[in-house]
Amino acid sequence: MPELRKDPVIGRWVIIATERAKRPSAYAKSAEQKKGGFCPFCAGCEEHTPPEVLSYRSPGTERNTPGWWIRVVPNKFPALQIEGPENRVGEGMYDKMSGIGAHEVVIETPDHNKSLADLDARQVSEVIWAFRDRMIELRKDPRLRFAMIFKNHGRDAGASLDHPHSQIIALPVVPKRVQEELDGAQMYHNFKERCVFCDMIHQEQKDGVRVVWENNGILCLSPFAARLPFETWLLPKAHGSCFSEITKNQVLDLGEMLYRLLRRMKEILDDPPYNFMIHTLPFTETNRVSYHWHIEVIPKLSRTAGFEWGTGFYINTTPPEDATVYLRENGAQIEEVPSGSPAS
Amino acid sequence: MPELRKDPVIGRWVIIATERAKRPSAYAKSAEQKKGGFCPFCAGCEEHTPPEVLSYRSPGTERNTPGWWIRVVPNKFPALQIEGPENRVGEGMYDKMSGIGAHEVVIETPDHNKSLADLDARQVSEVIWAFRDRMIELRKDPRLRFAMIFKNHGRDAGASLDHPHSQIIALPVVPKRVQEELDGAQMYHNFKERCVFCDMIHQEQKDGVRVVWENNGILCLSPFAARLPFETWLLPKAHGSCFSEITKNQVLDLGEMLYRLLRRMKEILDDPPYNFMIHTLPFTETNRVSYHWHIEVIPKLSRTAGFEWGTGFYINTTPPEDATVYLRENGAQIEEVPSGSPAS
Repeated sequence: MPELRKDPVIGRWVIIATERAKRPSAYAKSAEQKKGGFCPFCAGCEEHTPPEVLSYRSPGTERNTPGWWIRVVPNKFPALQIEGPENRVGEGMYDKMSGIGAHEVVIETPDHNKSLADLDARQVSEVIWAFRDRMIELRKDPRLRFAMIFKNHGRDAGASLDHPHSQIIALPVVPKRVQEELDGAQMYHNFKERCVFCDMIHQEQKDGVRVVWENNGILCLSPFAARLPFETWLLPKAHGSCFSEITKNQVLDLGEMLYRLLRRMKEILDDPPYNFMIHTLPFTETNRVSYHWHIEVIPKLSRTAGFEWGTGFYINTTPPEDATVYLRENGAQIEEVPSGSPAS
Repeated sequence: MPELRKDPVIGRWVIIATERAKRPSAYAKSAEQKKGGFCPFCAGCEEHTPPEVLSYRSPGTERNTPGWWIRVVPNKFPALQIEGPENRVGEGMYDKMSGIGAHEVVIETPDHNKSLADLDARQVSEVIWAFRDRMIELRKDPRLRFAMIFKNHGRDAGASLDHPHSQIIALPVVPKRVQEELDGAQMYHNFKERCVFCDMIHQEQKDGVRVVWENNGILCLSPFAARLPFETWLLPKAHGSCFSEITKNQVLDLGEMLYRLLRRMKEILDDPPYNFMIHTLPFTETNRVSYHWHIEVIPKLSRTAGFEWGTGFYINTTPPEDATVYLRENGAQIEEVPSGSPAS
């Protein structure tokens, strides 16, 4: 069973995969997976995954057979296991617990070769519905405290299978990074009596220089302190702290905006590797005036190096105001600026 | 001038490089730098870098000419600039300041093709002396609050130049990640009245399963809650909070241990990309009973993906106890375990 271990200094938990432990040779450059070959996520290969926990499919088709356009299955090689008790224990000065949790794969399309950016806004909205439906189901398990919904696109962003898919990992603890965001937003609220994300939306709409697009429900912006070049956030314009409570209209607006953003990034950044993550409340809460769910999209255009690892400080070589201009449809018309890479 | 900006929720500062801003095409896959060609860090090319701020060189040789074995120069394309005032200002709800600071390159050898793992313990100790000498110099500037000494080896670990070098970035603020480590260690000390790192050293020496090697002054261990496969820490066995106060014997012991570790990683992990970072006190302090300087070495064998970005939680596919066995000299003799990669 995987083990959760806590760093005694920083308080960060990690998942130690004890059962499928890798030998050094598994990391050698020659061990890179080859492309192509059999794909368990394609239509017709349903028996090669664990049985589906959700699918959107044509009426009359059977579960675990073709006919679906969205399919959610448990990960065949999960980082965490769904059975078992928490089993919190000490080991001398250290703390650990059993690696319980859920790890699911959201297969975004039956078509192996179409990424989200190649589909359409409607299909992206279907993916969002699946995220929401699974979130509602997972929070019923009282042992689970938080679920991270995320996507890795491209090998450099951590994807190991090419077929378009996202993932959901539900955890028995609230991660440090999530707690920090909640605490930071709460501190702002204590001081201002306003939601920091709502304030951000208002200031950005007024300033205009970091708003990429907006539609009825969603604002797409380059954050003021973007960590990475072309980091982009999608925020619901109406205050809401819990992603599970997304409305039908918001699903459609978010689908349109996410599709548009991924398509534009693919165009101007040469199909970049990217991650997106849904930031939302832990399962232990359903509402917070100080917090605001949102999606963060980060293309992986540069490497995270020693400086970032050691300090948590990032060096961003494309100011968010520039990224905004490039991302807007007329981005191609702006004047060229000299390109250069800060040494090493 | 570069700009420091603060995230209004998390409180994390980022450096926005406004002057050498990159266009989207600079990130395209086709824009990858080619290997080979002219190298400004090689002996004989001294005029292609800014003038040296430190060198260890043969008696009778002139500054900024060959004859050196270690050379430290300001980065030609610095992330931060050394001149100017702090200039802290607000921009509506946001906070920013001028990007002042120092950014230096430690050229570790005149030989373009020899990495630290190809040199010897003595030369690695010389690199450590250079780190220490520069640290002492940089902390004299009252505007600077912290310096991160780090190395990026290999493109996947963020290196953009092949010639062996490390970097020093001195900042006008104490980074969040550093403050968290100080605070975590302080909390432990408040509770136990002992240094958490000293406790770790004692428990690891007793347990034995995560100690890779030790010599007189330095313990080399796989941390209990290692974030990444083969993450390894080097700690001085005697309590000390400030890297600048490293003793001569410790420099030699650390040089031997760091050389041995990098060499062993190169052997068993196929010359992996890696980072190392020196964790030490901010400039505003010289001594803390609760803190203990150390070096963290992290090979970059897997990609940081959406889950890690969103949660700060890591999934480590090689338990530190296994990594310890592989890293010890007899590692090759242990039985093979099945290698497999957790899906996606």
